[in-house]
Amino acid sequence: MRNRIGNIFSLTSFGESHGAAIGGVIDGMPAGIRIDFERVQQELDRRRPGQSAIVTARNEKDCVKVLSGIFEGVTTGTSIGFVIENTNQHSNDYSNIKDAFRPSHADYTYTSKYGVRDYRGGGRSSARETAARVVAGAFARQALEQLGIEIYAYTSQVGNISLDKDYRKYDKNIIEQNIVRCPDADKAKDMINLISEVKAAGDTIGGVITCVAKGVPVGLGEPVFGKLHAQLGEAMLSINAVKGFEYGMGFDFADKRGSEVNDAFRCDNGSVSTMTNNSGGIQGGISNGEDIYFRVAFKPVATLLRDVETISASGYGIVLHAKGRHDPCVLPRAVPIVEAMTAIVLLDNYLLNKTTKL
Amino acid sequence: MRNRIGNIFSLTSFGESHGAAIGGVIDGMPAGIRIDFERVQQELDRRRPGQSAIVTARNEKDCVKVLSGIFEGVTTGTSIGFVIENTNQHSNDYSNIKDAFRPSHADYTYTSKYGVRDYRGGGRSSARETAARVVAGAFARQALEQLGIEIYAYTSQVGNISLDKDYRKYDKNIIEQNIVRCPDADKAKDMINLISEVKAAGDTIGGVITCVAKGVPVGLGEPVFGKLHAQLGEAMLSINAVKGFEYGMGFDFADKRGSEVNDAFRCDNGSVSTMTNNSGGIQGGISNGEDIYFRVAFKPVATLLRDVETISASGYGIVLHAKGRHDPCVLPRAVPIVEAMTAIVLLDNYLLNKTTKL
Amino acid sequence: MRNRIGNIFSLTSFGESHGAAIGGVIDGMPAGIRIDFERVQQELDRRRPGQSAIVTARNEKDCVKVLSGIFEGVTTGTSIGFVIENTNQHSNDYSNIKDAFRPSHADYTYTSKYGVRDYRGGGRSSARETAARVVAGAFARQALEQLGIEIYAYTSQVGNISLDKDYRKYDKNIIEQNIVRCPDADKAKDMINLISEVKAAGDTIGGVITCVAKGVPVGLGEPVFGKLHAQLGEAMLSINAVKGFEYGMGFDFADKRGSEVNDAFRCDNGSVSTMTNNSGGIQGGISNGEDIYFRVAFKPVATLLRDVETISASGYGIVLHAKGRHDPCVLPRAVPIVEAMTAIVLLDNYLLNKTTKL
Amino acid sequence: MRNRIGNIFSLTSFGESHGAAIGGVIDGMPAGIRIDFERVQQELDRRRPGQSAIVTARNEKDCVKVLSGIFEGVTTGTSIGFVIENTNQHSNDYSNIKDAFRPSHADYTYTSKYGVRDYRGGGRSSARETAARVVAGAFARQALEQLGIEIYAYTSQVGNISLDKDYRKYDKNIIEQNIVRCPDADKAKDMINLISEVKAAGDTIGGVITCVAKGVPVGLGEPVFGKLHAQLGEAMLSINAVKGFEYGMGFDFADKRGSEVNDAFRCDNGSVSTMTNNSGGIQGGISNGEDIYFRVAFKPVATLLRDVETISASGYGIVLHAKGRHDPCVLPRAVPIVEAMTAIVLLDNYLLNKTTKL
Repeated sequence: MRNRIGNIFSLTSFGESHGAAIGGVIDGMPAGIRIDFERVQQELDRRRPGQSAIVTARNEKDCVKVLSGIFEGVTTGTSIGFVIENTNQHSNDYSNIKDAFRPSHADYTYTSKYGVRDYRGGGRSSARETAARVVAGAFARQALEQLGIEIYAYTSQVGNISLDKDYRKYDKNIIEQNIVRCPDADKAKDMINLISEVKAAGDTIGGVITCVAKGVPVGLGEPVFGKLHAQLGEAMLSINAVKGFEYGMGFDFADKRGSEVNDAFRCDNGSVSTMTNNSGGIQGGISNGEDIYFRVAFKPVATLLRDVETISASGYGIVLHAKGRHDPCVLPRAVPIVEAMTAIVLLDNYLLNKTTKL
Repeated sequence: MRNRIGNIFSLTSFGESHGAAIGGVIDGMPAGIRIDFERVQQELDRRRPGQSAIVTARNEKDCVKVLSGIFEGVTTGTSIGFVIENTNQHSNDYSNIKDAFRPSHADYTYTSKYGVRDYRGGGRSSARETAARVVAGAFARQALEQLGIEIYAYTSQVGNISLDKDYRKYDKNIIEQNIVRCPDADKAKDMINLISEVKAAGDTIGGVITCVAKGVPVGLGEPVFGKLHAQLGEAMLSINAVKGFEYGMGFDFADKRGSEVNDAFRCDNGSVSTMTNNSGGIQGGISNGEDIYFRVAFKPVATLLRDVETISASGYGIVLHAKGRHDPCVLPRAVPIVEAMTAIVLLDNYLLNKTTKL
Repeated sequence: MRNRIGNIFSLTSFGESHGAAIGGVIDGMPAGIRIDFERVQQELDRRRPGQSAIVTARNEKDCVKVLSGIFEGVTTGTSIGFVIENTNQHSNDYSNIKDAFRPSHADYTYTSKYGVRDYRGGGRSSARETAARVVAGAFARQALEQLGIEIYAYTSQVGNISLDKDYRKYDKNIIEQNIVRCPDADKAKDMINLISEVKAAGDTIGGVITCVAKGVPVGLGEPVFGKLHAQLGEAMLSINAVKGFEYGMGFDFADKRGSEVNDAFRCDNGSVSTMTNNSGGIQGGISNGEDIYFRVAFKPVATLLRDVETISASGYGIVLHAKGRHDPCVLPRAVPIVEAMTAIVLLDNYLLNKTTKL
Repeated sequence: MRNRIGNIFSLTSFGESHGAAIGGVIDGMPAGIRIDFERVQQELDRRRPGQSAIVTARNEKDCVKVLSGIFEGVTTGTSIGFVIENTNQHSNDYSNIKDAFRPSHADYTYTSKYGVRDYRGGGRSSARETAARVVAGAFARQALEQLGIEIYAYTSQVGNISLDKDYRKYDKNIIEQNIVRCPDADKAKDMINLISEVKAAGDTIGGVITCVAKGVPVGLGEPVFGKLHAQLGEAMLSINAVKGFEYGMGFDFADKRGSEVNDAFRCDNGSVSTMTNNSGGIQGGISNGEDIYFRVAFKPVATLLRDVETISASGYGIVLHAKGRHDPCVLPRAVPIVEAMTAIVLLDNYLLNKTTKL
């Protein structure tokens, strides 16, 4: 609980936005896997601030230092400690919120719960914490690839611009070709324009990310409280600004009849599959070998670059004007975070599933 | 993991649909709480089959026997074991699915994962398992009431009939006045008619349940991986047939701007609150004292009372015609289950929050 | 924590001495194992009261009813719920301790911790709770036997009568031939005489149980906090009346030099073993393929059948005279409990070890 | 499991002896506690190599850098990440063990379990890992002190030199006045002489550490599987080289009668206490307010500074001569480790106990 996710493969993370460093401990990484460190850093680069015109201008390199658990390039089965130094903080930007509760931020709830908070850059409530997840996800992904499991996510909605087709209709190779990480090049332009416009107005905008996992073997997930989609949902909902999760047909199931949406089975040469995949690759909480896909809703970033009325910790009305450097839309940088959390959950469940039989 | 949910207050459950009994162990129930057993049974009665014309005709009494943890009517702080005997099984109804994989059921995934399954009535994958959750939830609720926390849920959509207003516009006292558990009496009639029509056609229908928790104190939930809404989402997604979860404004945040949806603070006589509650009572993963509300999407029940083409475990095509007694729509009986899971999560987090300070 | 032990294979138990029943939920039992129920009951019979002249005269049958998790005699991988009804309670025997704190019992600590306690027969603090452990251990043992792992324990000391030789010098087949469960027939007689004498005096006596596990494969146990011997020690120390644990040479290492006690390796035809086994089959917290052996110290039972001065819950001095039926020495009945806890820990670690590599 | 200990207050640790750094994440530290960093470093200094003539000559400063969780000197309730750089490794000293299995070390078991190991300085199996425990313990201790809980440990036996009196007979202020950390100044000299002699012979020696916790409130510990002494035992047995644990009268209970050793209660002015404390401050697994005390047995260090016959990983016989710098006796440096583990367990249980009642 608290700062830990995962049962067999787990991440325990630490770090505040403006502290000395963030980082974590990855426990349960299988032994004997050769690690490509460049690819770990590439995942961090996909998440890092300052990467394009539509994300925050903060320019943190986010270089990860791995301190243990790997010997001569190969995982040893022992815990992997890592740190990412905080190098580009402008802590003074936050002196004005020291005694303020920013709307739709965690300032008030943290202060109430703990009686104290590190207000600089949001402290522990900052999405900077997710860099540690990306590191753990990058390790998990390298293990999953050896099993033939592939994960990718993309921006499927920004504001009122949304992809109207099924994930199978899009070419995933297009995703990284635009800065909003959308597999439809035209919609990507519209999204980028919308974000730019919103940014210019000192405002922010929400959206949806779609994630797909291919090659997941049959049998991952536990039947009752550890259903695979429940673990995925929990993982996604733990990401900052996430407000909803649905898998397969999701909320669209609500107005459907069973006869319309049940996934019929077929068997070709001994290989079982389903003719449709409304279930989203999971039945009874357990993966069925079809593609797993789900959608994650993000609210607009709470920090506006304009005057905002709120209250101080003492309860009187004040007007804040955020300084700092902030994302007008969290979606482009959240794509690798969604992928990372998916990788963590899938590797954990792959390992757990090995204990099902003697 | 697996058959357990909760950290401090937890339920470990057991039981198959057609075995001798289902039940569980509640651990971490606070000591010194006087239990009203009638109300525990009442919650079970709200979930039980055979309660109305629009649910399955199975007529199980679902009497809970509490075996430990309570002395002279008061909880002792030790674990509470309980059983509910299975009394009305027609196991023969299921002989035809012994070697079949029913579409959109867990037959195929269980068989693949475990190599063996109890096919009678779905075995462990049956929603009968949720009766144990209702028992644990009923205990949790009695503790929460002492804290002034109230939880209620209702059916807000069945097929294309949905409530179009905010939960605050409905009278919760109406919910239990109709068999579909909807706080809008007119819409309730429409929903009942729709379910009856679907049932007559041997079909099934999906829907949405809305849940509200009032009086939750500020401070519940953990900042990073144990965010309160992530725990609620996980709990809801662990319920059979659930395909989506959103809290506060949920997926509707996706096309909103921060300036439209941020919840401004106010302070009246030292009491902090928000002027709107788009956040759904949780900010930064921690309850903020406002109402918590969320929506849960259910797919239509997979079992149709008509001929269905599928495959046998050996891979050849067969036609199944479900016998058994099945729900045409899971929503009416799922309302107390959603409430129970909410109670479990809230009590667990209330207790956990006590450890935040020395 | 609390009422649960184990990570992958776990037992969550419930039940008070004089409540309706005790029992538990076994989670993580591997699927596909055919269960011999008679042998489960036999293990319970080895633990049950009334089995001989040197144990308590209570005559409880301790029949276990398994309620789930097994279909047509084979484990299904789902949780195994079970109950053992309490049938022979003389609750009135305990009315005199309702308001008393018995010396070296848990009456005072339970009352202080929980504010309430079920005083009948010690309630949850009664060793009756260990029957649930024996059930879980009996299931674990049947899985371990398929792996060639054998576990046995025996009474190696009662009062001042102790076995002076190494476990390898004794024939384990003798253990069950005497009621004190000692593999030295002559010492067994002495122990039985001593217990009879102590019993006649209304007194009680302590002792030591030695446990041996053979055929444990190399690799079980986790390096740092989950060292195999730490898990075994925790499991043994969780048994009522246990006050000490040592493995291998244990406390006798304290006055030894490394040159005397290091276990030299040898390699015969590619098979690595050690020439001595002072380490007790575990090195660096991980099993090394040699026999695992350890010793568990038990204090004398706290309940004396004579007048005892103590205090009431209100703090004034009183004289108690225990009625009830009590063991003069816990060792004979604790042998199967020690074996059961060993089986639980070993199966859990066997399964966990499967996750070490991809 | 694995690299984590604790439920509410927990340490997740990482690091190999000759990697870049060791460290960990402390989760669940209560908010609002002002930290004295000098005292954290002092605890590390008590454990560090090179501190005296009778410990290893390695001269590591073991400076801890705290990276998060503390703001303006006060704990914030968020996770505390920390690192200790490895600065004085002579990795070349270990090239000769790359392909060797040292007797009574973890070389063979690690290689068998993981298929790979960092052989330099023992890698993860090195006791260097315990420095992270000392850091976590130093934080826990500062919280416990606010509750009036005091912990101290001392060397009570080295080889055949042992303290023959009860812990109450010794002055704890003497402990830190000698380099072996023994509260009997004369025996300390004998122990130091013995260690020096053993060291000169290239040999090593075992011993016993006694630990005492005073001021522990009534009620800590869980009744069944989380008994306080079981958690303490597990924690001690997780320390490198520990082979036995006993609390209160421990193994000496085995030849005692109940009438000799039961701890009678008394009540003075409403305050309950026991007239003797053979139980060691814990009854029924729960602290009773008396002093908690226990003994921990350590084997002699496995590394001898002389020629040792063993086998290579390929199975042929070889002769090793350890280079490196090693402790002839682990006891002096283990005293702060035992204290640290005690502090971790007590704080965890103090926090957990807060959840017992609503």
